[in-house]
Amino acid sequence: MNRKNKIVLLGSGNVAEHLLRAFNKSVNSEVIQLYSRNIETGKELSKKCNVDYTNNLKNLKDADLYLISINDSAISKFSKSLPFENRLVAHTSGATDINTIDYKNRPSVFYPLQSFTKGKKIDFSNIPICLEAKSTTDYNKLFNIAESISNTVRRVSSEERKYLHVSAVFVNNFTNHLFHIGKEIADFHSVDFNLLKPLIKETVDKLQQKSPKDAQTGPAIRGDQSTMNKHLNMIPKEKYKDIYKLITESIFDTYN
Amino acid sequence: MNRKNKIVLLGSGNVAEHLLRAFNKSVNSEVIQLYSRNIETGKELSKKCNVDYTNNLKNLKDADLYLISINDSAISKFSKSLPFENRLVAHTSGATDINTIDYKNRPSVFYPLQSFTKGKKIDFSNIPICLEAKSTTDYNKLFNIAESISNTVRRVSSEERKYLHVSAVFVNNFTNHLFHIGKEIADFHSVDFNLLKPLIKETVDKLQQKSPKDAQTGPAIRGDQSTMNKHLNMIPKEKYKDIYKLITESIFDTYN
Repeated sequence: MNRKNKIVLLGSGNVAEHLLRAFNKSVNSEVIQLYSRNIETGKELSKKCNVDYTNNLKNLKDADLYLISINDSAISKFSKSLPFENRLVAHTSGATDINTIDYKNRPSVFYPLQSFTKGKKIDFSNIPICLEAKSTTDYNKLFNIAESISNTVRRVSSEERKYLHVSAVFVNNFTNHLFHIGKEIADFHSVDFNLLKPLIKETVDKLQQKSPKDAQTGPAIRGDQSTMNKHLNMIPKEKYKDIYKLITESIFDTYN
Repeated sequence: MNRKNKIVLLGSGNVAEHLLRAFNKSVNSEVIQLYSRNIETGKELSKKCNVDYTNNLKNLKDADLYLISINDSAISKFSKSLPFENRLVAHTSGATDINTIDYKNRPSVFYPLQSFTKGKKIDFSNIPICLEAKSTTDYNKLFNIAESISNTVRRVSSEERKYLHVSAVFVNNFTNHLFHIGKEIADFHSVDFNLLKPLIKETVDKLQQKSPKDAQTGPAIRGDQSTMNKHLNMIPKEKYKDIYKLITESIFDTYN
């Protein structure tokens, strides 16, 4: 096919910006218009990425895909407010059901499984995009568009996506909090947290060769009570002590 | 200086093997002898790495450094059994005090801060080596040797090392267990854990630009009770639910 897929992007937040930058490099898909209720962030982003901007839903152009990238809680109402019918409309949320999008259009999901940071560039080709649609035609259209920015495109149902999202909370949100606790312990005792970064990197690199179950090390798996008691005395907050005890128990239970 | 630093390595486990391989590439230090009580693993390692082997302490050669890389609990007794005095003797343990080494020799510490996996090659130049010694002469000797295999060499006291070790339990052991929980949730619901690996990688990459405190995202920091309740219903084990609740509380407390 010669014609580029036309996308209207609805939203001007962090995810919208990363998507817009990725599509700007795509050869078979393009964002032809950016909509945002927020004039300030909308205009700024459209200028940075050289794309038409509107803050008026009545001015939305014809497109192959309307991509809603706004807060989860606003998706339902926003999709109802779209002034057209029977067009392909996707949201980009990990935690939101496909049926949250109003049925007057053709609901679908275009979920890039990544945690985006404002201002931090990221290679979109490595980001898995999880797709869901209500017909084969719609799925194929989404697939064609997703494949133009990512090497990993998968069909994932709303049900499966929910479980991925819970799992992501453990491996991303909670992991990051453990890094924070580790840093707080290091800072509290004036030792340099940077010394731990190669260890953190290796913890993740190992996942390429071993399952996390096989990679587990440390005093908890050995049931080394003497080391664990010493550790508990060195932890500066009660809540962190509780986390230490609970995860230690969970590790011990997993292997014994 | 032209003469290479001579090292006798005592131990044939995982850390010993990684150290031996690193020193084999060094231009100013060399392992001249490997000692191990375990004849089987000792002979095998010495053969693989082309170094003299003995299982008899009386046959230990003269060296600039005796590097003890054995189980933490065996270091004290083993250091007492060395049949010489006033030589530089270091252990490689993160959790063990310098004074665990018998005073008839010159105690020191040579601790590579990393989690080593049997059979997985690793670039030693990026691994921080934490040193401790009882005199400037000894420290300089250790520094010279450490610098020959690593770009990050630091003076770290036994006290500081203990705190690094607790912090390491959070960022390495506990993080890995969260990966295991994430994988178990994904497996339980037949979704592909591999889809989460780019997210895990990004969680760590972010640490280069942001402190973990500034990088935190997710329902816990927003206090999004509705999403959290849905998540709790999808977690297949009580212990994992408890971990979810406790870390969520801790994240919320950190920011509110």
